[in-house]
Amino acid sequence: MASMTPNESTNLTWHQGSVTRADRQKLLNQKGVTVWFTGLSASGKSTIACLLEKMLIERGKLAYRLDGDNVRHGLNKNLGFSAEDRTENIRRIGEVAKLFADAGLIVLASFVSPYKKDRDAVRASLTAGDFIEVYVKVSIDEAAKRDPKGLYKKAFAGTLKNFTGVDEPYERPETPELTIDTENMSPERASEMIFAHLGKCGYLSA
Amino acid sequence: MASMTPNESTNLTWHQGSVTRADRQKLLNQKGVTVWFTGLSASGKSTIACLLEKMLIERGKLAYRLDGDNVRHGLNKNLGFSAEDRTENIRRIGEVAKLFADAGLIVLASFVSPYKKDRDAVRASLTAGDFIEVYVKVSIDEAAKRDPKGLYKKAFAGTLKNFTGVDEPYERPETPELTIDTENMSPERASEMIFAHLGKCGYLSA
Repeated sequence: MASMTPNESTNLTWHQGSVTRADRQKLLNQKGVTVWFTGLSASGKSTIACLLEKMLIERGKLAYRLDGDNVRHGLNKNLGFSAEDRTENIRRIGEVAKLFADAGLIVLASFVSPYKKDRDAVRASLTAGDFIEVYVKVSIDEAAKRDPKGLYKKAFAGTLKNFTGVDEPYERPETPELTIDTENMSPERASEMIFAHLGKCGYLSA
Repeated sequence: MASMTPNESTNLTWHQGSVTRADRQKLLNQKGVTVWFTGLSASGKSTIACLLEKMLIERGKLAYRLDGDNVRHGLNKNLGFSAEDRTENIRRIGEVAKLFADAGLIVLASFVSPYKKDRDAVRASLTAGDFIEVYVKVSIDEAAKRDPKGLYKKAFAGTLKNFTGVDEPYERPETPELTIDTENMSPERASEMIFAHLGKCGYLSA
């Protein structure tokens, strides 16, 4: 007897519409891709993503930013910060990025995403070449000095728990496509570097 | 003591990037919106959505289809078909549609979405006017006669459980923006009607 459960989804079939990803990319004159920014809180991920987004839109390229803060108010508002929930958080975001890239957009995803296995799972779920991992590097000392939201202060005081870099691990990428050393590069220069990389790799035309 | 849980997200803030939804809409010369197709399995939701998608892309409008079958292989692959999981399924899809509409796209979402409260929750979560509910109407007899995937046959035989319209309820929309009576209107005519509605309401220009 068949029952409709996640593991017995034999009644599900992929719908291949008559419109393809290539059609959408041609319309936009660009290729769908996910630029994944990973790094500690206050590393500058969102700042760089915002600058890159502006640069792309001004040049007629459709980019969209997915942001930990924003997504957690909506899609992932029923998730917390346990290791399990962090993994599900990144999994869902990866699936959304996949849909956006399939729609032809340049996705700028900026999330602490501390676990290597979670980032690698997103990479594996995407079409090869659709995932550009950008390691936004900062030392914990420098991040704690910046601390624009006062979170490190709370984390070091013990009033904020499960904070990446303080009482939760951050696993740095081993072979990211790009590394931004934010202690030696301005956000402006970083966004220009990523923009150039996108152009060089052919994402800015269909 | 603060702890990072879903209910104490005081450390989360909305990032207002310098690029706005209006900027993206201007780039695309269209407005973001979700066209939500609801109706029984085999009512013709996906067929109409596919035709409408083609019509939009051919006219230079960026549309993207979200489909129950497709989304359940990715974002919602960890959900089943219990009432609770169906509700979470539609909630997540609504949040994704919200992101797509914010990105400026015309989202064509076709899901059985049998519960009125779930569809109304999606409507309520979107900006006013961003949700166009299309009731794709068919009688259970006609749907069972079409039965392209043989699902009704299994459901009536009792070998497929929790099937909407057979042993699970379908709550029809009370005041949908559009109703398509698929027993008296071709999918082609239906897609033309929705296209005209989008134009009339101003979604096909920025």
